[in-house]
Amino acid sequence: MSVTRAPETASSLQLCRLMRPDDANIVGNVHGGIILKMIEEAGCIVGTRHCNTQNGDRCLAALVRVEKTEFLCPVFIGEVAHVTADITYTSKHSLEVQVKVMAENILTGAKKLANKAALWYVPCSLKNVEKITEVPPIKYASEEKEEEGRKRYEAQKMERLETKARIEEVVPPPPSPEQHTVGFSQSSLIHLVGPSDCTLHDYVHGGVTMKLMDEVAGIVAARHCNTNIVTASVDAINFHRKIKKGCVVTVTGRLTFVSNKSMEIEVLVDASSLVQEDKGKYRAVSAFFTFISLDKENKPLPVPPLKIDGEEEQRRFEEGKARYLQSKAKRLADKERQQ
Amino acid sequence: MSVTRAPETASSLQLCRLMRPDDANIVGNVHGGIILKMIEEAGCIVGTRHCNTQNGDRCLAALVRVEKTEFLCPVFIGEVAHVTADITYTSKHSLEVQVKVMAENILTGAKKLANKAALWYVPCSLKNVEKITEVPPIKYASEEKEEEGRKRYEAQKMERLETKARIEEVVPPPPSPEQHTVGFSQSSLIHLVGPSDCTLHDYVHGGVTMKLMDEVAGIVAARHCNTNIVTASVDAINFHRKIKKGCVVTVTGRLTFVSNKSMEIEVLVDASSLVQEDKGKYRAVSAFFTFISLDKENKPLPVPPLKIDGEEEQRRFEEGKARYLQSKAKRLADKERQQ
Amino acid sequence: MSVTRAPETASSLQLCRLMRPDDANIVGNVHGGIILKMIEEAGCIVGTRHCNTQNGDRCLAALVRVEKTEFLCPVFIGEVAHVTADITYTSKHSLEVQVKVMAENILTGAKKLANKAALWYVPCSLKNVEKITEVPPIKYASEEKEEEGRKRYEAQKMERLETKARIEEVVPPPPSPEQHTVGFSQSSLIHLVGPSDCTLHDYVHGGVTMKLMDEVAGIVAARHCNTNIVTASVDAINFHRKIKKGCVVTVTGRLTFVSNKSMEIEVLVDASSLVQEDKGKYRAVSAFFTFISLDKENKPLPVPPLKIDGEEEQRRFEEGKARYLQSKAKRLADKERQQ
Repeated sequence: MSVTRAPETASSLQLCRLMRPDDANIVGNVHGGIILKMIEEAGCIVGTRHCNTQNGDRCLAALVRVEKTEFLCPVFIGEVAHVTADITYTSKHSLEVQVKVMAENILTGAKKLANKAALWYVPCSLKNVEKITEVPPIKYASEEKEEEGRKRYEAQKMERLETKARIEEVVPPPPSPEQHTVGFSQSSLIHLVGPSDCTLHDYVHGGVTMKLMDEVAGIVAARHCNTNIVTASVDAINFHRKIKKGCVVTVTGRLTFVSNKSMEIEVLVDASSLVQEDKGKYRAVSAFFTFISLDKENKPLPVPPLKIDGEEEQRRFEEGKARYLQSKAKRLADKERQQ
Repeated sequence: MSVTRAPETASSLQLCRLMRPDDANIVGNVHGGIILKMIEEAGCIVGTRHCNTQNGDRCLAALVRVEKTEFLCPVFIGEVAHVTADITYTSKHSLEVQVKVMAENILTGAKKLANKAALWYVPCSLKNVEKITEVPPIKYASEEKEEEGRKRYEAQKMERLETKARIEEVVPPPPSPEQHTVGFSQSSLIHLVGPSDCTLHDYVHGGVTMKLMDEVAGIVAARHCNTNIVTASVDAINFHRKIKKGCVVTVTGRLTFVSNKSMEIEVLVDASSLVQEDKGKYRAVSAFFTFISLDKENKPLPVPPLKIDGEEEQRRFEEGKARYLQSKAKRLADKERQQ
Repeated sequence: MSVTRAPETASSLQLCRLMRPDDANIVGNVHGGIILKMIEEAGCIVGTRHCNTQNGDRCLAALVRVEKTEFLCPVFIGEVAHVTADITYTSKHSLEVQVKVMAENILTGAKKLANKAALWYVPCSLKNVEKITEVPPIKYASEEKEEEGRKRYEAQKMERLETKARIEEVVPPPPSPEQHTVGFSQSSLIHLVGPSDCTLHDYVHGGVTMKLMDEVAGIVAARHCNTNIVTASVDAINFHRKIKKGCVVTVTGRLTFVSNKSMEIEVLVDASSLVQEDKGKYRAVSAFFTFISLDKENKPLPVPPLKIDGEEEQRRFEEGKARYLQSKAKRLADKERQQ
């Protein structure tokens, strides 16, 4: 049996990739997001290539719309996903790419259609990203094909205009806490623990957890001072409870204390199993990270003061201040001892 | 100056890695989290190796504590980080690893000390992760060294006991919304846009955004039904606004509608620049993902009904139901046309 | 202009991927290791697919040898690498895959041949990794083609037997070696093998190993000349022993020979299980990489001479020189034949 295939032209492309453990959930089903990412990579390559076949400004194809798409059957680790992309319609300033994903089991030879999608791109000039360049026309197999494409083009154009209005209307005025308060910079992320995060025991490596903690703390610090920030130190971290593969980890960071030149951020790591009902959510780790703000020459910058609201925040601020003063005293003592 | 290097033994280890664009922020400073992850990798390897030098149960070294650590100077893209790990103390059931990170600029030859850290591990049996095995003793260079190690051991033991009490005490009873409500499964992640997420224009690839959206939607779906879930379809997605490198992306997912066998999840993508103050937060993309729940044979399972609270949720539920019925009708019509 | 392409069959495959910032060094040159990894992924897919076209045990194609390969021109971020793999010879228990890498600039339409490689695989049963299954024969375009293949097969078989014997101990360099000595630039990295590095067998993909080897060789070369360096060629690589999931891989690189414009680096890969007592450390792979140093216009720069210390280094230098002269003579002969 063989994969038959039309000869590739400038307006057509095939890519394939072996599905790996990190692409899938613990049962082995490849995440839909991995398939969508491959589809878009194929569309972007074929679109960009086509738009640069004429003279004029060099440009990149930017995705503006994906039509409704269905995942027709699950894809598994060890299968090869084949993505075929073809340009199927061009207007003056946009183009449609139709993409098909076949999953091939290379052990049995079985193939199945996993997904079909249609994507719309506009070419943006490399010199000026706001400038939409012109799309070279393609040749259609028949007048019907062209007419069908035009209908799809008109339909999506209409819908994009409609939702554009809706999206801007619906967006609620962000329940914006005042700048420089604790609430303003507080941030959370969730992370689904994958195989590469884990040891042979199927528990998360401590280093993976610390990386996520630093990531959240960095975002909190950057939100507070809108500058380039770097980790200055991390307080002792105790790992009380292990985190198992397949858990969802929620990492939350909030400012506790701010001095002239540093910010202390408390980072809390909670884990919960998605599948084992019994376990519930538990606090796995917590720690204090200290960040500083740097200018372009990597010199420390002053940090905006923290606006405290309520007793809880005040208490945490005082505790943070005590830690700050203690560690400052220790640094001075160390210095003197060395002299 | 040079990287001095003792001959490597079972209780000592060196690793190095080139710092890449994705390891750093947009100004080129390597994230502290990347350094912490390397430190822990070295510690875990040297610890595991040492604990398996004796006969008995095979085991893995699990991180239980990292001492306070300072980032002494920034590390940059293109530099090589050298991590040296040595076992410096062993108790009956734990061991201390001291780690040093040197950053080397391979273009100028300059080297600088970036970090020093101390980590504590306990060996967990591979057969039974709850069983702590015994640690083979190391030889100390002198009695003083051993005595110093014992003091560090006692100090950290005390502090671990203390914080263990504190962490369990402090954890607030989670403000847990009732199971199967919208609030119960609602989830958010934040992601700092890195270079590998971007096109040559320095704007995020649409495929990267869709992957994040699917990730959040999947966590929402799994939280709602505690089973293996997969993406069944994605509604049309419009990309109204571009997302630039260095932005923080907040992706939020919430259930809007649930049928017998499917869940509709609305996913909202907001972007905000961390450095350019003027821009503010804006809605970049939104879409509806549909997930189904599967049993071990990949057969669809019934989905728990959604508990609706308030007019807003009711309105969104009705809209979701309309989309569900419309798409069901379309599928039937397509089927009939094919027959 | 179009990429013409033969229709794909079970014994042929194309894959492509957009080159991203993390695939390249700070000047934008894609690492040779990334190309080698793509080549091996294509070879593994086409080999595994072919070996499963007959009834009998399901199996995976395991890489046992890569023939000497040259990097004909640099590849840059934003280009699309197209990898074509074809099965060109089959013996009873092994098969040869020839792979071609074209780099396409999708902005200008320019295409260039970046690499040509030949890889040898043997099929290992999924049930018993030590069992080599039979390879279904391919059809040859002509008797000459088959005869040429047989000659390549005999030649590589001979060479694999020879190199199997030669394995050498790695000596750590002296503390603080002088610049431009072998010890000064010698480098090691260790890598804990994770699930995404592995096949369905839980053995490391050959491409993953080659990527690590290229990474270390690149650091050695950069340390020696403090400039932008790129992979120019890789000598034949034999994969003597498989590396299992959970192993620690130590990859060491050291300069053996330096000409006016090139550096030869020997890279040794040792694997050891952290947990299985019996296994100990073993040499899994070794190879010679050749790097050149480039200026900002990607023109070759002179390379600082290598300071030799001791008989061992002298011997390796002479052997490297012989390889260098032989390969130079071969290049000249090839050129003359083509004129």
